[in-house]
Formats: sequence, structure tokens, C-alpha cells
Amino acid sequence: MRTELSRRLGMECALFGFTPFPAVAAAISRAGGLGVLGAVRYRDPGELARDLDWLDAHTDGRPYGLDVVMPAASAAGAAGVTEADVEAMIPAGHRRFVAETLARHGVPPLPEGERSRWRITGWLEDVARTQLDVAFEHRLALVANALGPPPADVIDRAHRHGTLVAALAGSARHARRHAGAGVDIVVAQGYEAGGHTGEIATMVLTPEVVRAVDPLPVLAAGGIGSGEQVAAALALGAQGVWLGSVWLTTEEAALRSRALTAKLLAAGSGDTVRSRALTGKPARQLRTAWTDAWDDPAGPGPLPMPLQGLLVAEALTRIQEYEAEALLGTPVGQVVGTMTAVRPVRAVVDDLTRGFERAVARLGRMAGDP
Amino acid sequence: MRTELSRRLGMECALFGFTPFPAVAAAISRAGGLGVLGAVRYRDPGELARDLDWLDAHTDGRPYGLDVVMPAASAAGAAGVTEADVEAMIPAGHRRFVAETLARHGVPPLPEGERSRWRITGWLEDVARTQLDVAFEHRLALVANALGPPPADVIDRAHRHGTLVAALAGSARHARRHAGAGVDIVVAQGYEAGGHTGEIATMVLTPEVVRAVDPLPVLAAGGIGSGEQVAAALALGAQGVWLGSVWLTTEEAALRSRALTAKLLAAGSGDTVRSRALTGKPARQLRTAWTDAWDDPAGPGPLPMPLQGLLVAEALTRIQEYEAEALLGTPVGQVVGTMTAVRPVRAVVDDLTRGFERAVARLGRMAGDP
Repeated sequence: MRTELSRRLGMECALFGFTPFPAVAAAISRAGGLGVLGAVRYRDPGELARDLDWLDAHTDGRPYGLDVVMPAASAAGAAGVTEADVEAMIPAGHRRFVAETLARHGVPPLPEGERSRWRITGWLEDVARTQLDVAFEHRLALVANALGPPPADVIDRAHRHGTLVAALAGSARHARRHAGAGVDIVVAQGYEAGGHTGEIATMVLTPEVVRAVDPLPVLAAGGIGSGEQVAAALALGAQGVWLGSVWLTTEEAALRSRALTAKLLAAGSGDTVRSRALTGKPARQLRTAWTDAWDDPAGPGPLPMPLQGLLVAEALTRIQEYEAEALLGTPVGQVVGTMTAVRPVRAVVDDLTRGFERAVARLGRMAGDP
Repeated sequence: MRTELSRRLGMECALFGFTPFPAVAAAISRAGGLGVLGAVRYRDPGELARDLDWLDAHTDGRPYGLDVVMPAASAAGAAGVTEADVEAMIPAGHRRFVAETLARHGVPPLPEGERSRWRITGWLEDVARTQLDVAFEHRLALVANALGPPPADVIDRAHRHGTLVAALAGSARHARRHAGAGVDIVVAQGYEAGGHTGEIATMVLTPEVVRAVDPLPVLAAGGIGSGEQVAAALALGAQGVWLGSVWLTTEEAALRSRALTAKLLAAGSGDTVRSRALTGKPARQLRTAWTDAWDDPAGPGPLPMPLQGLLVAEALTRIQEYEAEALLGTPVGQVVGTMTAVRPVRAVVDDLTRGFERAVARLGRMAGDP
């Protein structure tokens, strides 16, 4: 499963794995793919530095990447804005709705003095820039941005550092804009993907983005959790696949809640929803009583990004901490229906590779058979 | 592009083409696929008989099929219900909303005495049964049902006639039900497809349905308009593909409106919407001022199937007749973005075949390359 791009990055197989967990990222890279660590949950640059040091030491010299969340220069209204500025913009009625929803489900407050773990201050440009200062002191093969192309100076800095820059896109129009801004790789994120998605499904989006940014390489994201799906994505013209959901139920994943793992293992493909409940932008996630409350027309509805993320940060920590089962969720794609057992990352990668080879052999017989 | 199923049906390539136009169906079959004629628009059994006679004479002995719309026996509340019974259930306020929306866009009434062409009485079981009486007097290789498995006696009758039975499914649960009812083929219809669809994208739905009904053959539908997409669908385990949208802009298609063809050629993948405006169930179609009016929370909203279809039948005829551009639409999938030129059916089939072979060759290099 090699492509021009995977060879350029020194990968054994063209699998890019997004994960918030360093142990998962390292295992993906050691298995021959490229683990991409999500930076958005890191509040403290020192904590990120420690985890990247650990990655440098535990990836056997294989490439790995970092996924940040920063607005492009053109949309940098947020530069210089602090968390307190944003907090002050949240209406009191929305804070009441959060408190009432948690109370209705019997979720206790956090213990005295314990700060919310789940912050989304990574959305703010200053935070992302501090993260990149840390990251460029490490052996970083790839930096990906979930909000389109990073600002031009960040792209230049990455290139001087020998790091390729990827940006996620949910439409061909966005992909063309990213290409124009100088990114090296576009990740085409289909409707069925976990996290932020547009309306266009992977089957249609991938070839559309491939054509839009040719000759830039494209990774397909959304709906990919088996080797057959990898073969499909590469048939659509992608030079690699970008997987996020499948790692959530690996042995190396450090989900804080066993109840959440159980929910993921039990969920079917129809148990996700594209909701603004998490960040204020449509993001696919497990459907829960929490997403239902935010998607209920009778409620106040989600605030725009980044307000919604700040509004619900402490609530999400409480929901996880106390395993409030009805409310407990996570971003995950429609492939959650195939995640039915906890397995080591290496077993997942082996299955992807073997399934890909089987699918290609079967296609070869269909094509060759007169 | 041959599979066990395509060989069983005597096809040269595993392409199933759904179309309301006999000339398109015949051209698909002559080009080596299997044209499936949509029966829902036929009010008059004599008209259907004439078109099937024509198909028998113009398909060079190649297989073709018919797509009907009938409820399964278990849900046959509609048996014996007449069009007049259903018409009487439509609220006056909804009729007013139709009249006002057409008036706002300056759509004139039909000429005196001209009956509505666009009826959906094909949804009623009695109508579908009459259509099948006609169909089984013809050389029918396949009968497909858009509303799940046909009643058991219809399946038996098809099998005695040597006709395979296919049923559309938008979820693995529905697919298992269809398999249990005795159908021979399941068509897995993904979110991105034109017409009635569920929420699960083709990339996820296809392998899920393949596993659910194994060893029954599955056709993938939704998001397929190029050979690369055919390769992707077959990589996912399908034994064939079911295409509908791409034929709408072929030379053989008899769309009544040039303005509609122009709209299809200009539309991008983001210009469709899953709306209940057409039939009362979510169906993907071009987004228009008409779908916007029905999807507007300030309006009365669509009625359930089959009321909505009867309610809007005459309005749709008027919109087409007078080419009311802002309102003019049609069921079509997200692949509409790739439909940019009017071409003969044979050219479309040739492109699909060649694109498939190119994609398989490229995958072979990715797999084989050490």
C-alpha cells in the first residue's frame, strides 16, 4: 500500500492516523503508517513538549505529525483574543441550559479546586502558535490544520523545518483555497467522517478534490476503517487515507471512561449525528442525550465557534468524570459500526493492509476476467 | 468488469442503470450493462406495455429490468386504497401553500383539459401489481422494488418467470429484512444517492450490507458516476453498481425541459438536498426554491408519503411545462457535480469501463510495489 506520497514521507503504507493519544500515534508510526497527534487538548505547552519528546523516543525513527487548529491569516480576527474575552461573550441563558441539562441527568459538580481538563483554547491562534513553537523543536514530518491552511508564515516555517503541511477540506472550493495558500497535502474529509464535516460524502468528495488540487496529493478521510475501504479510497485517486475513529477502541487509546469505550463498541453506523453541540460547527459524533438537547428546536441551540466549545468544556469534563452514560459521547465517524472489539494498533494496521491486498486482488480478477 | 452476478445475468459489465426513459434503458443494455426502467411514472398499463414491447425489440436480446414501487405484504395497508381516498386526506392549508408558492413564482395553471402528467399513483400497490402483470408478459431479467421486498407472491411469480428480484435498502437492518423476505439482490443506496436515501454514506453502507446479507449479491448505489467510483464500490464488496443520476444528461434521455438539463450541467456536488418535498420521504434532489419552500420551518412542511406526492403532482407538471427556472428540479445524487456535458449512453459506459480499468491498474501498482 505505497504511493508517491508515502514514499516521500518514508512510510511503509499510506495510512495516516489521527489521534489525541501519543501512545496510539507512536504505535501507528511504528506499524508503518504515520501517527498524527491532535494538539487541541493541550493547554500547557510543557505537556505537549513532554509528549513530543516521548514520541521522538518511541517511534523508532519513523515519521509522525501534529494536528493543530488555527485560522488562516485571512480569517485571523481571533489573533490577540484571550480566553477571557471569549468567555465574556457567552449568554447567561446558555450557561443556565448547560447547568439544567447536567442537573436533569444528575451530573455532580467537579470536586473543589479541580480545573476543567477539557478545554478548547487550542482553537485560539495564539495557543496554536505556542504549540507550533514547541513542535518545531521536534522531529515533525507533518503538520496538519483542521481549519484550512495555516497562516503563510507558519507554512514557510514548516517548509524551512522540512515539515509537510496538510489542511482539511470538506469541499472542492475549500481545497482549491488551501492549495492556493501553499499547503502540500489536502485531506478531503467526507460527510461520514468523525469530527467536523461538510455535506459531501467521501465517494464524491475525494475525486472532486483530487481534480481540484491536481497535482497536489490528497488523503481521503471519512468512512474508512477496513482494508476494503482503503482500497476504495485509493481507487478514488487519493494518495493515502486519513483515519481517526478506528483508533479510539485500540488497546493503546487512553479514553478516560470505560463506559465510553463500551458505547463505541456497541454503536452502529446509524448511531452518530452531525451536530453543532461540541464546537459550534457541525461535527459528527455519537448521538447522545447531550446532542439531542442541543439539537432540540425547543432549546437555545448551540452558539457559534469558538463560544460553544468554551461553554461546554467544563460540562464535558463532568460528563466524562462521572461517566454520565446518557450524555457520554465523542467525535466518531459512521465506521463506528465496525468497531466491535478492543485490539492493539498493530492488529488494526495489519487488518487494513491485508484487507487492502485482498480487495485489490478481487478487483484484478473482475477487471481481467474476459 | 465482471462479477458472478453479472455473468449470471448475461451482462458484459456489472453496471445497472436506473432510468425513467426506455431509450436510455435500451442503450445501457446494448452497451453491455443492464437498463432498469422506472415504472412509477406510468399511469396507463397500455403505455407501459408499449414501452416494454419496444425494449424487447431494441435491446439486441440483452437483459433489462423494471423498477416498481410497491409496499411489502407486511406493510400493505395501502392495498385497495384508491387515488381518490388518498386525495381526500390532504389538508386544505397545504393545497393553499402549493397555490401560493406557484403564484409567487408566476407559474400559470395548466391549459384547460390537460391532465397532470406527473402522477405518483405508481406508489399504490394495485397500480404496481397491474404494472407487473404487464411486465411479466415481457422478457424481464430483473424486477427491482424501491420500497423494500415486494410481497411474497410477487417474488414467487418473478422466480417462476426466471426474473431476479432486487430491493433497495438504506441500512443493514432493512437489507437483512429484504434477504429474509427472499429477494435475490440487495441494492445498498447510500446517503449521497439521488432519490430516497438514508443517512449512511455508500463507503460505510456497502460493506455493512454485504456482510449483513452474505452470500446474497449486493449492488452499490450512491456517489457513482465514474470508473474510479465503480472500482471503489466493487472494492467495498459489491457485485455490481447501480447508477441513476449520470443518465439524466445523456443524449437518449428525454427530459421535458432544456432548462432542467442546463441546471443539471451547471450544478455542483453541493447543489443537492435531501428533502421530503417530493414524496414525503427524504429524497435527494436538486436544491431549488421549491425544496427551500417546503424545508422552510415557517411553512407547513411536507405531508407523509403518499400524500405529499399526490399533493405536488400537478404543481410539478406546471413547473416543468412552463420551465419555472427557480422551482425546476429533479431527483439526482451528489455526482451531479461531474455531469458537465450531454453525451451518448455508450460514451458514458465506455468511460466507466475504461476508468475502472485504470483505477484497478493503479491499485495493483500500489499493492505490488514493495
